Amino acid sequence: MAKAKGPRRPRAETPKGFRDYFGADVTERSEMLGAIAGVYHRHGFEPLETSAVETLEALGKYLPDVDRPHAGVFAWQEEDGDWLALRYDMTAPLARVAAQFRNDLPSPYRRYTMGPVWRNEKPGPGRFRQFYQCDADTVGSASVAADAEICGMLADTLEAVGIPRGDYLVRVNNRKVLNGVLETMGLTEEGERREEVLRTIDKFDKAGEAGVRELLTTGRLDASGAFIDGVGLSADQAEPVIAFLTSRAATAAETLANLRAAVGGSEIGAQGIDELEAMASFMAAQGYGADRIEIDPSVVRGLGYYTGPVFEAELTFEILDEKGRKRQFGSVAGGGRYDDLVKRFTGQAVPATGVSIGVDRLLAALRAKGRIGGEAARGPVVVTVMDRDRMADYMAMANELRNAGIRAEVYLGNPKNFGNQLKYADKRASPVAIIQGADEAAGGVVQIKDLVLGARIAQEASLEEWKSQPAQTEVPRADLVAAVQRILNGA
Amino acid sequence: MAKAKGPRRPRAETPKGFRDYFGADVTERSEMLGAIAGVYHRHGFEPLETSAVETLEALGKYLPDVDRPHAGVFAWQEEDGDWLALRYDMTAPLARVAAQFRNDLPSPYRRYTMGPVWRNEKPGPGRFRQFYQCDADTVGSASVAADAEICGMLADTLEAVGIPRGDYLVRVNNRKVLNGVLETMGLTEEGERREEVLRTIDKFDKAGEAGVRELLTTGRLDASGAFIDGVGLSADQAEPVIAFLTSRAATAAETLANLRAAVGGSEIGAQGIDELEAMASFMAAQGYGADRIEIDPSVVRGLGYYTGPVFEAELTFEILDEKGRKRQFGSVAGGGRYDDLVKRFTGQAVPATGVSIGVDRLLAALRAKGRIGGEAARGPVVVTVMDRDRMADYMAMANELRNAGIRAEVYLGNPKNFGNQLKYADKRASPVAIIQGADEAAGGVVQIKDLVLGARIAQEASLEEWKSQPAQTEVPRADLVAAVQRILNGA
Repeated sequence: MAKAKGPRRPRAETPKGFRDYFGADVTERSEMLGAIAGVYHRHGFEPLETSAVETLEALGKYLPDVDRPHAGVFAWQEEDGDWLALRYDMTAPLARVAAQFRNDLPSPYRRYTMGPVWRNEKPGPGRFRQFYQCDADTVGSASVAADAEICGMLADTLEAVGIPRGDYLVRVNNRKVLNGVLETMGLTEEGERREEVLRTIDKFDKAGEAGVRELLTTGRLDASGAFIDGVGLSADQAEPVIAFLTSRAATAAETLANLRAAVGGSEIGAQGIDELEAMASFMAAQGYGADRIEIDPSVVRGLGYYTGPVFEAELTFEILDEKGRKRQFGSVAGGGRYDDLVKRFTGQAVPATGVSIGVDRLLAALRAKGRIGGEAARGPVVVTVMDRDRMADYMAMANELRNAGIRAEVYLGNPKNFGNQLKYADKRASPVAIIQGADEAAGGVVQIKDLVLGARIAQEASLEEWKSQPAQTEVPRADLVAAVQRILNGA
Repeated sequence: MAKAKGPRRPRAETPKGFRDYFGADVTERSEMLGAIAGVYHRHGFEPLETSAVETLEALGKYLPDVDRPHAGVFAWQEEDGDWLALRYDMTAPLARVAAQFRNDLPSPYRRYTMGPVWRNEKPGPGRFRQFYQCDADTVGSASVAADAEICGMLADTLEAVGIPRGDYLVRVNNRKVLNGVLETMGLTEEGERREEVLRTIDKFDKAGEAGVRELLTTGRLDASGAFIDGVGLSADQAEPVIAFLTSRAATAAETLANLRAAVGGSEIGAQGIDELEAMASFMAAQGYGADRIEIDPSVVRGLGYYTGPVFEAELTFEILDEKGRKRQFGSVAGGGRYDDLVKRFTGQAVPATGVSIGVDRLLAALRAKGRIGGEAARGPVVVTVMDRDRMADYMAMANELRNAGIRAEVYLGNPKNFGNQLKYADKRASPVAIIQGADEAAGGVVQIKDLVLGARIAQEASLEEWKSQPAQTEVPRADLVAAVQRILNGA
């Protein structure tokens, strides 16, 4: 008899551009966030957790003359007409909170926050529409001591999560110095040419010194063979920019001297250099040497956005990329000083500085170096079920193991096929299986199977060795916990 | 001169029904979630973190014949026509994951998950549109050993977060027993009368035995004076339901005997009682006595939804409500066995059981009992700024304190007004302020102000005591860390 067709079944699919995190991926991130929070807390920063949802007007992406908000955010209209949206970063909610609670919050307000943000962008390989951000900001302090504090905290954080000294570098630059350079070139505050120069500087990371020189002057053939028009400066005009970008020297004092030459008589330039000098002295007073934090004018990321100090944390070790080539791991955090955080809401400018750590990149780095992935990934001890009627005994065994701090569980699938139970233990990466059939129960013993050793023997052992079954031992029931403990400790 | 009016400023407001969490509220929740995760992990459960966003069809709230999805979820349409939505609980995403990854996940699959969920409901006092859920479920085990495991884990969890034995009770019931009772009453599987009886039973918590008896028969005047129609059973017909609800006795054995009488010859009823009996034996074998987990047929929450064992964790101590009246704190977690988790997607029924902990209620309970709120709420030591030019020295002091594990920071606001610095320290709940002006610097000393003692003296002390300034001491600069340590340790 043909059955009437029911309604179409829903597809079981993660939405496009989103992903699920299983097991150790969750645990390792949560441990890293805990370690970061510990450092931030010790520096006097307070946690803040805003909701994932903000009004679109608070986020500031809504254009009043279009029906739907701009691309880039996930937004929807409520029945009362209001538009709501998922936050796309942690800075916009901080601005809202700093304005909304300005009479209640301490000033300066140091806060940290960690959680997912959402971007309504075309997903790509490794690019997801939900990802973690972990930010620390100081709102309401105009002093570069606040910037220096964050740079020091960033160095401490990297060491706390497992990046040893020598494997990272916090690099510091200052937008005001660049402004001074531009001023000496006669490029005015809001001119179009100035914007073009800023955009070009942003390519320094990829194009390098020679490339930026070409781009600032006559133009350049890029890697794909396309010709990129130049900004049209003369070679002489471009020189101060190049001098700025390449002014890093062996010591902070020399770098600062090079910068003083690059900004000539510009007042804003001199102010920027004074700020860098002050930061250098604050770092030195706390014992952060140039092996951890250094003044480096080649830091250009975000230089167009920030208004004063700009900083970036880079991992300096090499990893193999997907094609097996060695490359530097690169940036894992960045930040700087920005104005107008709260001004959108209140009309009053409030100085602020902050940093954002790319948690997922940092995790990837630690995994690439094999510095995480041990304990968290180990599965539970599995108590197998030889006799369905003796379930209570098996549960008591698992409970004893847990009370001794050992991760343990009873096999809860259909126990009929014992092979399935061992396959399950294998899939769980269980280190040990416990077996007690009727004979063992009558004799007051249990079998303990060392699955790690067993797997090695299965691969390597001779027939003789295999037959002797060194991976399986029988112990009195009363010694269960101690015997498992011995195997887990590798004794 | 009148200024031209700019565009209207955005409002700095948390969206209606959402809230921000500051400071210790964030830390305490995160510590609780960490403690819960530890217990779940020890029981062999694996973390899972799905994205906040699901396709609306996977959530199963989309009605194909309406333009917009049903109320209750936050949903929006993508440019490609797909509807996306924020998850409203953790069970729907688990169902999607269990179906999508059914060939890769171990079976049974034990997973836990913790995070926010969103409900598009009218907000009210204490009712928010984003809140935390913390769930543990076992998918793919038909054995009530899985239910017993979760009940034991729930008891362990409550103790791990700070609810001592005696202050909580995990109560267990079984839907099949109720089905047996209804069968003896001649109420068929899908009849309307049966649904009415189920709905009435759900009111047992509030209406009590006499109330439910009235509601099952002729009807009842409720507290507001309105008359609620009865289901229309005769007093005799209603009796098995009442017998079921009130069958709890001093021991599990007696309770089970009472239930056997209530279900008469019903096969499904007998099966439910066997399941309860098995669970009781599993609990006993692990040492969970009736002071922690008990069979209690008066547990009715979710009895209409679940298909087998149902459980609820209740805090048994009294608190004062907003009107100062004593009342039981009540339920903080609930769960049970449910079918068809994955069936919507695959057509195959997969048995599952799970529990959801109300994290925010549990936090409220611990706060009401004064069991959390100590260390996490303490502010940092504040190094004040007497001399703007000696910022590097102040930062070095804060750094030394932090390196000794002490939470510390330099005051980063405008240092001109010293009173503002102490007000700031007060707002931060700082235990200690450090002061070093030019004289102290020249003499190689620092002033250490015990702000906790200072606040007490300001309240209680005589003029004499106050003048002697016992809350402020001068120590050699080299003894800074040790002196602060002494105050923090209360020595």
